[in-house]
Amino acid sequence: MPLSAFTNVFAGNPLDRQSARRADPDWVEAQLAHPDARAVFLWNGKPLVTGEPGARTIAWGPSDLGRELGKSAERLLFLGLGGLGPVFAVDLEDAADPAEGPLKGRGEFEDLRTAAPGMPLPETGILATARSLFEWRRRHRFCSNCGQPSEVVDGGWKRICPACRTQHFPRTDPCVIMLPTFGDRCLLGRQASWPAGRFSALAGFVEPGESIEEACAREVIEESGLEVVSVRHHSSQPWPFPSNLMIGLLAEVSNDQAAPQDSELEAVIWVSRSEARRLLEGTLDGHLPPGDIAIARQLLAAWAYESA
Amino acid sequence: MPLSAFTNVFAGNPLDRQSARRADPDWVEAQLAHPDARAVFLWNGKPLVTGEPGARTIAWGPSDLGRELGKSAERLLFLGLGGLGPVFAVDLEDAADPAEGPLKGRGEFEDLRTAAPGMPLPETGILATARSLFEWRRRHRFCSNCGQPSEVVDGGWKRICPACRTQHFPRTDPCVIMLPTFGDRCLLGRQASWPAGRFSALAGFVEPGESIEEACAREVIEESGLEVVSVRHHSSQPWPFPSNLMIGLLAEVSNDQAAPQDSELEAVIWVSRSEARRLLEGTLDGHLPPGDIAIARQLLAAWAYESA
Repeated sequence: MPLSAFTNVFAGNPLDRQSARRADPDWVEAQLAHPDARAVFLWNGKPLVTGEPGARTIAWGPSDLGRELGKSAERLLFLGLGGLGPVFAVDLEDAADPAEGPLKGRGEFEDLRTAAPGMPLPETGILATARSLFEWRRRHRFCSNCGQPSEVVDGGWKRICPACRTQHFPRTDPCVIMLPTFGDRCLLGRQASWPAGRFSALAGFVEPGESIEEACAREVIEESGLEVVSVRHHSSQPWPFPSNLMIGLLAEVSNDQAAPQDSELEAVIWVSRSEARRLLEGTLDGHLPPGDIAIARQLLAAWAYESA
Repeated sequence: MPLSAFTNVFAGNPLDRQSARRADPDWVEAQLAHPDARAVFLWNGKPLVTGEPGARTIAWGPSDLGRELGKSAERLLFLGLGGLGPVFAVDLEDAADPAEGPLKGRGEFEDLRTAAPGMPLPETGILATARSLFEWRRRHRFCSNCGQPSEVVDGGWKRICPACRTQHFPRTDPCVIMLPTFGDRCLLGRQASWPAGRFSALAGFVEPGESIEEACAREVIEESGLEVVSVRHHSSQPWPFPSNLMIGLLAEVSNDQAAPQDSELEAVIWVSRSEARRLLEGTLDGHLPPGDIAIARQLLAAWAYESA
């Protein structure tokens, strides 16, 4: 698959992360002082965006505003070098009303799930990176090894415990998300908590001691009772809620006797390729397709329009 | 790829993890009391094994020994149901000399990297799961959100903080491991710390905000200066040192002008398919292939023997 085909939302962060140099605080400080340095702002995980709904873009600010609002290393993150200069992110955390301060008039803070559709893909990738890092930092202020407060280093990409010297790196939790197929039909499921009528792919976390393919087989049998006989990779997607790596798969199963039990799913349906196309086009009565930023939608489309 | 082709060492844990039921302490206790319940024992991450070197098997013990030695939930782990009954693991942690106690004569504690070659694959999968979980638990005794000691629940698969109620799940860190290819040659690299002459695939952790394919492209350009133009998935492997998920890829690059700089690699070489075969057979003068339990070896073999 050519890299240009990776069109999943939240993939496509174009910045050069400079993973070797960001460990040097002087180098990071010099980037922050660069006249072209820019910052994105997040408040409780919501990015500051501008433009019309459905066509949002990042509301960039100059890095001196980032430095002023970020104040401490705890709130600042070096994201990388872009074509226009260094890029940072600032975590405003739970500040009372950041839109009333120096950011007034620059845009609005919007949930990333709502802001992402229609946003340029490279910007969704930048925001996904910033949001995942800040969510990790917010939940990992203490050393899991000894309980003492830890400190941010490496431009925001690492924490270190001053007491026991343990290093802590951001979490990335791999999840399998798959479309079981049998002959010319595929299986979709729905969770009770979803909007009425929505059906999507099956999914679950990869556990320690499992390969991707084993996790896929386990989740499919747990959720549907079906046995996976082969697995094809489609693509993958960073999913910043808070920090998952979605691994999209097509999973051929051995029969069509799906029987959810002990399952998170309240219902499953088999759909043909033509039904899948109608589902994606919004014309399958009473049914809604996977959300438009979900890799599940790409998986379903890949299968529905596959030459067959 | 048929599931039967997943022959990576540490994949193939045959146990039914019962991820819904293990959350019920009474159910887990009933499994522990089952007359056929068995336990594997680990000491500082080393499993208790028996048999000849190169043909080790797990030195199983009865679950009452597991209960006696495990003592607390902190040291016991429910691994799942096998064909012969429930299976547990016991962490002996840093006990002075566990081979002198009730386990005397049952086997020896051996580094899993050394014990795994030649061990039945399902047993390597069971040990990989146990080792990863115990390594995670040992480094995550305190709540990263508030610093208080956390408690083990769900048969060992979760921790919960009694102070702030945050739930903590085991980490699984996804890594890309890839063989850059150009025309009929592939690129191998070596790190200075490796045994003299060893060459292997390139590898690195997937960072937040990256797809698998993007992480592959970033690591290849960081390590070799080469640009990735397409990515093929080969297979994946749980790697319990301490808890990685190795994602094996073949990465076509745009030219052969490899130029490692700012790199963890001290050298790179291009090899043809016939040279790769000789490397794997141990007849490429002065060069050693990837280790025999590494997915890198499977990747190299897949490419070297691919019809082309």
